[in-house]
Formats: sequence, C-alpha cells, structure tokens
Amino acid sequence: MSHALSNLSVDGGRLWRSLMDLAEIGATPKGGVARLALTELDGEGRRLFVRWCEAAGLEVEIDEIGNIFARRAGKNPSLPPVMMGSHIDTQPTGGKFDGCFGVMAGLEVMRTLNDLGIETEAPLEVIAWTNEEGSRFPPCMMGSGVFIGKLGLAETLAKTDEHGLSVGAELARIGFAGTRKATGHPVGAYFETHIEQGPVLEDEGKTIGVVIGTLGQKWFDLTLTGVEAHAGPTPMRRRKDALLAAARVVEAVNAAALASGGHACGTVGYMRIHPNSRNVIPGRVEMGLDLRHWEAENLDALAAAVTARVAEIAERTGVTAELTPTADFPPLSFDPECVAFVRAAAERLGLPHRDIVSGAGHDATFIAEVAPAGMIFVPCENGISHNEAENAEPEHLAAGASILMHAVLARAGVVAA
Amino acid sequence: MSHALSNLSVDGGRLWRSLMDLAEIGATPKGGVARLALTELDGEGRRLFVRWCEAAGLEVEIDEIGNIFARRAGKNPSLPPVMMGSHIDTQPTGGKFDGCFGVMAGLEVMRTLNDLGIETEAPLEVIAWTNEEGSRFPPCMMGSGVFIGKLGLAETLAKTDEHGLSVGAELARIGFAGTRKATGHPVGAYFETHIEQGPVLEDEGKTIGVVIGTLGQKWFDLTLTGVEAHAGPTPMRRRKDALLAAARVVEAVNAAALASGGHACGTVGYMRIHPNSRNVIPGRVEMGLDLRHWEAENLDALAAAVTARVAEIAERTGVTAELTPTADFPPLSFDPECVAFVRAAAERLGLPHRDIVSGAGHDATFIAEVAPAGMIFVPCENGISHNEAENAEPEHLAAGASILMHAVLARAGVVAA
Repeated sequence: MSHALSNLSVDGGRLWRSLMDLAEIGATPKGGVARLALTELDGEGRRLFVRWCEAAGLEVEIDEIGNIFARRAGKNPSLPPVMMGSHIDTQPTGGKFDGCFGVMAGLEVMRTLNDLGIETEAPLEVIAWTNEEGSRFPPCMMGSGVFIGKLGLAETLAKTDEHGLSVGAELARIGFAGTRKATGHPVGAYFETHIEQGPVLEDEGKTIGVVIGTLGQKWFDLTLTGVEAHAGPTPMRRRKDALLAAARVVEAVNAAALASGGHACGTVGYMRIHPNSRNVIPGRVEMGLDLRHWEAENLDALAAAVTARVAEIAERTGVTAELTPTADFPPLSFDPECVAFVRAAAERLGLPHRDIVSGAGHDATFIAEVAPAGMIFVPCENGISHNEAENAEPEHLAAGASILMHAVLARAGVVAA
Repeated sequence: MSHALSNLSVDGGRLWRSLMDLAEIGATPKGGVARLALTELDGEGRRLFVRWCEAAGLEVEIDEIGNIFARRAGKNPSLPPVMMGSHIDTQPTGGKFDGCFGVMAGLEVMRTLNDLGIETEAPLEVIAWTNEEGSRFPPCMMGSGVFIGKLGLAETLAKTDEHGLSVGAELARIGFAGTRKATGHPVGAYFETHIEQGPVLEDEGKTIGVVIGTLGQKWFDLTLTGVEAHAGPTPMRRRKDALLAAARVVEAVNAAALASGGHACGTVGYMRIHPNSRNVIPGRVEMGLDLRHWEAENLDALAAAVTARVAEIAERTGVTAELTPTADFPPLSFDPECVAFVRAAAERLGLPHRDIVSGAGHDATFIAEVAPAGMIFVPCENGISHNEAENAEPEHLAAGASILMHAVLARAGVVAA
C-alpha cells in the first residue's frame, strides 16, 4: 500500500451521527435500544440502512433469510467479495452499539472510499445479518448461520417466538423476505468490528482488541418438575420444590465456571416459574443454561460437570430434570493472516492494542467456518453491553472503523490511481 | 340438644353435586379450577351461589367490598348471627375444594335445616368472602379483612393487579359492588370448614381435624438489583448477578425454616427475572418470601434470621436488596368454647379426629379477632392443595359439613319443636 493510503482514516463524526440516527429507531427512555429481530422497528432500521447504502451508490440485495447485502463494485467482478458486517437487531434492553457499530462502520468505510475515489480489485460488501441476538427467535446468529449452510433455511423460517409467530411470516410482514438464494455465495474474506462487551480493553487502556478467536459455547434448556402445593400446610420435608432445585442449579453453574477458571463462563439468564404465585410451592421451572470456554476440552468438562450436578440436585431435591442441549459452538480461532492484517493496521496507525478472545459469539464466528475472517474490538464503558447503558467513545469507534478499512483494503487490493 | 338432633347429618350427595356444579365455572383441563378474584368467572360463580341461596329462602346482601351474606332468620332477630363461610375465588391453578367446600357446606347446612324444619334462636348466615387467596390482588383474606376493620375500605378498593386494574373497578365491572356497609356488623360466632391442605389427617387416618389455631405468617417482597451484562465477555468475578443472589435467598429461606423446626415454613413461590434473556446476566429480580410459624417468638426469630441472610447475600454477591414487609399475621388461637363444640360433635358422631394447627390463614383467622370462631378440617388426597389435582372424599366432606351444622346449632340454639 502506498504511503498516502497507509494513514487513511474514516470520518468519525459521520460514523457517530449515523449510529445515533439508527439508535432513534426503538430508542428506550434509559438511552438504549429495543429493536428485536423482525419486529416493525427492525423493519424500520433495515429500511434506513438500505436507503443509506443506495445513497452511497451500493447495490443492495436481500436474501431468503432477510440478510441485507450492499455491494461496492471492484475492478475485477469475478473475485469473491471482501465483506464487512454485523447485525442491527438488539436485545430487549440493548444498547446503541452492539452489532450496529459493525454495520455502520462498514457503511462508513464505503463512504470514505467513495470520498477518496479509491477503487479496489475485489468487490466489497457490507452486510446486516438477520437475528444475530437470538433473543426473540433462538438460535442466535441466525442469518449468518443460514448463509454458511449450518442452519437449514426451511427449518429456520419455521422457528417461532413465544407467541407462536414464525420467522418466515414475520420476515414477510416487515417486507424483507428476499429472493437472493441464502447459500452458495463465495466469500473472499470477512471482517467485523464490534465493541468488546467486556471490561478488558478499557481496564488496560487499549484502543484496539486484535481478536484471535471466539469462546466455545454450550446452551441448554432445563425443565425441573416437582409438585405444586400450598406454602403453609405442606411440611418442609415433604416438599418437591422446583424453584429450590432451580436455585441450586444457578449456584452450581456459577460454582462450576469459577472452579474451571481461565475463560470459563456460566450463566443462567432465563427462568420461568410455574405457577409463580406467592403462597404456592413452585411445581415447575424452565431455565436456560449458558456455558462458555476457550479450550474445547475444558468446555466439554464444564458441561459434564454441570450435567452431573443437575442430576444430583434433582435427586436430592425430589424433582425430575429434563436437560436439552439447544446450541453448541466449538471454540474458534480466526484466520492468522486476517488477524495479522488487523494487528499490522493498529501498529501502523500507532494505536494501543492487544490480542484478545471474544467471549461472545458473533456472525464472524460462523463466517470463519467458510472463509478467512477476523474481528476488531474497541472498548466500551465499564465493559457493559446487553444493557441500555452501553456506551463507547466516538474516537474509539472511529479507530475501529479505520482499522476495518485498512484490513479490508489489505485483502481486497487497491487499484493504483 | 335432643337425642334426635344429636345424630343429624347433611345430605352428602347434594353437597357433592353443588361442589361439582360450582367447579364447572373456570374448570381447567387438569380437573382444577381457575377462578381468580373479581374476574368474569368469579362473577359467574358468585351469581350461581346467590341463586342457590335465594332458592333456599335466604336473604342475600352484598357489602361494599363484595362479600356475599345469605341469612336464615332465627326466632330472635336481635341476636347477632352465627356465621358459616369461606371463599369461592381460587388460585391460578387451584382445585375444586379450597374455600368452595366451606361455602357449599354452609349452604348445605341451611338446606338441611330447611328440610328438617329446624328453627334456631339466633339467625344464621353463610358468607362468601371476597378475594381470600390474594393471588391476583394482594393481600389475601381481603374481604374478611375489610369486614373486621383491619384493612381500610378505600385503600383496599384502590389495590391494583399486575395490569393496573383496581379492586373497586373490577368489583363494579362484575356487578358485586354492594351497598351494605362493610363494617360495624355484630357476629355471634363463626365456623369454617375447610380441607386440611396438608397431609397429616390422611396420614393418620383421621376424618376430622379440630383446628386449635392458625400459624402466624410474615410475607415480604424482595427486590435484588445487580448489573445487567453480557453472559459471554463479562468475567465471572466482575459480575453483579441478581439471579445468583436470588438463588442464594431461596436456599437461605429453605434452610432457615428447616433449622427452626416445629411448624416453621419458608417458601419462595414468586419470582420475576429482568430482562430474562438467555445470554444476559440478570440485573434485577423481584421475589416474594412467605414465612410461617406457630409461636410468635419463633416467627420473629425466623424473620430476623432471613432478613440477616438477605443482607449478607446481597453484600457477598455485589447486589442491593430492598426487603419490604407486605403481610404480618400473628399466630392465632381459636376460641376454646368453639373448639370444644367441634371436638364434642366429632366425638358424638363417632368420627376419628385429632387437634391440629392450620398452616394456612383463612377468613376464620380474621373473624376470630372480633368474635368466637372455630374451624373444622377434613383430609385431602396426598395433602395436595393450590394444585389442580386437589381432591377430597365425598364422605369426608359430608362429615365436615355435619360437624359444622352441629357446632352452629350448639352456638345458635335450637328452638324446641
């Protein structure tokens, strides 16, 4: 790359304004965003993104699972595209930056290259993947999962939310049931920039996280069934209390992750108690277990330990346990060359950086199964995400988008002016 | 009482049929009843009861809190009435007998006395008290609480359910906002028959429980507030997990009750997790604590122990705790003469019986604060209540209603034919 190109940076102010404009759709009083996948608000956000892409001269296509592809032509159209992307659906109490930063950063890269009249060899694409959060419709990373052929299209369109509405029906309702085939598209490389969603970069004063991979995850649904009975006249020793068992499982998941150490995480985020009446001993509890680790064998051991504890707890508390795996992602290491491009760009721009493992899965985790991929992290305030208070510094976001641009140009090749 | 009267019994078949007819209103597929206070179905049940009372020649009045009074005249109208009663509202997943048995038993007593042409000195009343369960609108024993002046009428009419609907508005909507003043009515005595809702009578092969009193209860609402964050990238040791704290409180309530021993009960039946998303560390949990004991000092000690544990748990787990008392009923001993009438009737009819303490509060618990009162228990299958599978033997129910009749006649006095 020429010396002039080596110090390129994006327009940070324009990036910030686009993020804030997008964040108005589904804005919550606490400063966050509630824009669940395939709701009316998600449709509004999608339409705004498409308008911006078209205004930037990008060619937009929607695929059968609602993924949005916006392409900037390269000199050589037969080369597979170098892609940037993330997601614009949010958690129920989400923030303005999770996912949206990666999509707006990709758009900002396109706008900057237009401003500078830079032509690439390979085409470039920025993508907004459908339903990365998996909050309304499990599983997470739905759009990218279908794109790589890991999740079947028909079965995914048939997934329903807790009210029985299907992905397919909701996609059509918001006008994003596209015609471009979901699978079979070559990818040259994929880069995704994202807020860290953890406290490490901020704690260490780093601007850029060179992401070397993502944690493996195992999710389970657990149903504990005891006996509903009256809280007063039922002697303590005769109870089969499903909530007492559930409480013991919450403690056990936490303890197992702490005992495992390293990158181990164990979380219960979801629980429904039946009948959930103040003076009735709960007869049934449904809950979700979320286990994560960096080494595959450690993740397996953590899952085995939790499975064993669930069985012991059920036996001891006099309830039955039904434990069902619902998601299983192995730990993933990103392509060394992509990682190197990101590291080199941070070096070249003089930004404090460190290698880091992503605790969360991202669309990049799936795309990495079919193409060289990499990720770029920037700090977020107090490491908070999946929280309306989620926040990031404009300068950090601009730095991440600039690194994204450099990595993309290194892979796509710049046509000499 | 004359020899002929001493062996009187009610019509058990008619009692059973009335119970089954009432149970059709709000019947659930699992054989239970969902007829929450002041819903349309509650209105339907109330109207059926009023029709039956009028058909039995009883004079019906509705008071300002919706309590239904059905009076059978006595020879001496200036004597305060001898009352029978219970409630016909149910738990969300309730049974056919809880509360309904006591109301139908009182109606069956009236019908039997009519059949036999028996006149009493004092008037008799059978009452259906409003909202005994406190499930939709806390607190429990609402109608009887207002009747004795313990709960203020205006503030009680203003209580709302989780959707913001008020007691007053719902009473009016179902047509039971009555005009009889809620307070200031003398009571001669009060008797209530009820299923035990526990396993003791069935275990010991007794037909009648001579209830000597009800356990004291202390209820609390507890809100635990931590920090919502992403389940993946948030290191275990940096979390402020409100659900982990809640789980520790559930365990602590159970342990404190077991340690206290005797009649101690500790239950968490209600819990709401926020945001309740599978990969988000919960930032807030609301829960209900239900503590019970027979000795006042032991109940105080149990509450103090739990309160201390809540503070320790909050500190240790890095969350804040807001613990609010929501109900406080001291242990109550029933009037010795009323208890003696019940015991004597069981003896006279040759029914296996034992003294017993009620684990649950009942409307009788409140009425006992203003007048001599007693209760009669009958066994229920496996001690199960607050459960759609709740069941009782027709013979046991008939026995309880017959004891009720004998106790009432002993207090009201029979006019010699």
